[in-house]
Amino acid sequence: NHIIVCGAGRVGANTIERLLHEKENYVVIDRDQQIVDALMEQRIPAVHGDATFDEILLAAGVARAKGIITALSHDADNVYVTLTAKSMNPDITIVARAERPEAAEKLKRAGANTIIFPSVMGGRQLAASMTKPVVSDLVENVFYNQEIHVDIAQITVRPASPLVGKTLVQSAIKEQYDSIIVAIKRGETLLNNPRAQEVIQSGDIMILLGQRDHLYELNRVASLEFGLERDF
Amino acid sequence: NHIIVCGAGRVGANTIERLLHEKENYVVIDRDQQIVDALMEQRIPAVHGDATFDEILLAAGVARAKGIITALSHDADNVYVTLTAKSMNPDITIVARAERPEAAEKLKRAGANTIIFPSVMGGRQLAASMTKPVVSDLVENVFYNQEIHVDIAQITVRPASPLVGKTLVQSAIKEQYDSIIVAIKRGETLLNNPRAQEVIQSGDIMILLGQRDHLYELNRVASLEFGLERDF
Ligand SMILES: [Ca+2]
Ligand SMILES: [Ca+2]
Repeated sequence: NHIIVCGAGRVGANTIERLLHEKENYVVIDRDQQIVDALMEQRIPAVHGDATFDEILLAAGVARAKGIITALSHDADNVYVTLTAKSMNPDITIVARAERPEAAEKLKRAGANTIIFPSVMGGRQLAASMTKPVVSDLVENVFYNQEIHVDIAQITVRPASPLVGKTLVQSAIKEQYDSIIVAIKRGETLLNNPRAQEVIQSGDIMILLGQRDHLYELNRVASLEFGLERDF
Repeated sequence: NHIIVCGAGRVGANTIERLLHEKENYVVIDRDQQIVDALMEQRIPAVHGDATFDEILLAAGVARAKGIITALSHDADNVYVTLTAKSMNPDITIVARAERPEAAEKLKRAGANTIIFPSVMGGRQLAASMTKPVVSDLVENVFYNQEIHVDIAQITVRPASPLVGKTLVQSAIKEQYDSIIVAIKRGETLLNNPRAQEVIQSGDIMILLGQRDHLYELNRVASLEFGLERDF
């Protein structure tokens, strides 16, 4: 139940750095032996080879992986990896990098769940840094920086959590966990800035801003299940 | 008091699209006549030429510009534009794109205020889309998408605003403006998730999530000054 990262160039290297912070299990595929050696030295599992080859994806465990991030520099290669991964593991979640806008539709049709354009992210960030520098800093720090120990989290409320049926004010999330409830995703609806009297429901995904250790603790409370010995 | 965008390739085009939404005055410089023609057709002011030439930057009004975003594809060109712009207008704010990590230090020394790596933004977003899809969606939507009409804003509290001296609960920002106070930047301090009893001070920069029209109205209240006829 791991994540495969295809390509450890400039974009892929930053993906890997993020995954390290998230404590996810993952394995990297890269064509460059020097890059693979450098990853191994950092104890990051890596496979040397071309991710567009079936046997390389199989060696990285595509059949039992929960997700694959294809961060190769050529759109055609990412489409190819997407198609191959989907055929070998229909349940896999696929996040794909794209450079040219035309690639988006092809990646979608090949089975990618999410498509990320580094040029779009970069271009928008250039504008935001000019027009909203404080916001831009905050998003950058909250979303990515480990140093300030503030994080944004998505926490799913399980059926048997003691949070179910409580209003937000009763849940004491703001005071006890020092966390901001930015939004609640309930089915397809996104409740922004939910009211203090909003009642927490089973299956709600709460989007929270807070300190990392508080959010871990809150996640534990939200995830409580009856009969933990059973396999839900 | 405009912003200059150097380069309207894939990255620069996304910068321009963002600035359109922000209602900023800007002018674009690009070497490609076809791109310049296409911008002019959209009524976007554009100068045809090489931004590393002094006369092209002067034609784009660098001497009186408040900011310049240099989004060229080669790091050396962005360093060159940064140096030139800074020498022609020492007060200008410079946001620069970088590709290779080594470029960051050179851009800083040349005078860039902020440096953005599209590959870093893209790489992180690939990881976030895999590990925190709901958060990633929300940040994407709140920060960038116009459709959901929710925005993140930085609002500076001016000395004569009626907000000064009120606690957050007295200010009724949550109820009246349906906005979340994510943080307050006070000098060098960032107060995350500020308490309801926190007293708003002159000069505070409030980071808020809310509907665009509510935030505009709140910004008006925060910006109130005595003697608006005078030039502060
Ligand atoms: Ca973080
Ligand atoms: Ca927006």
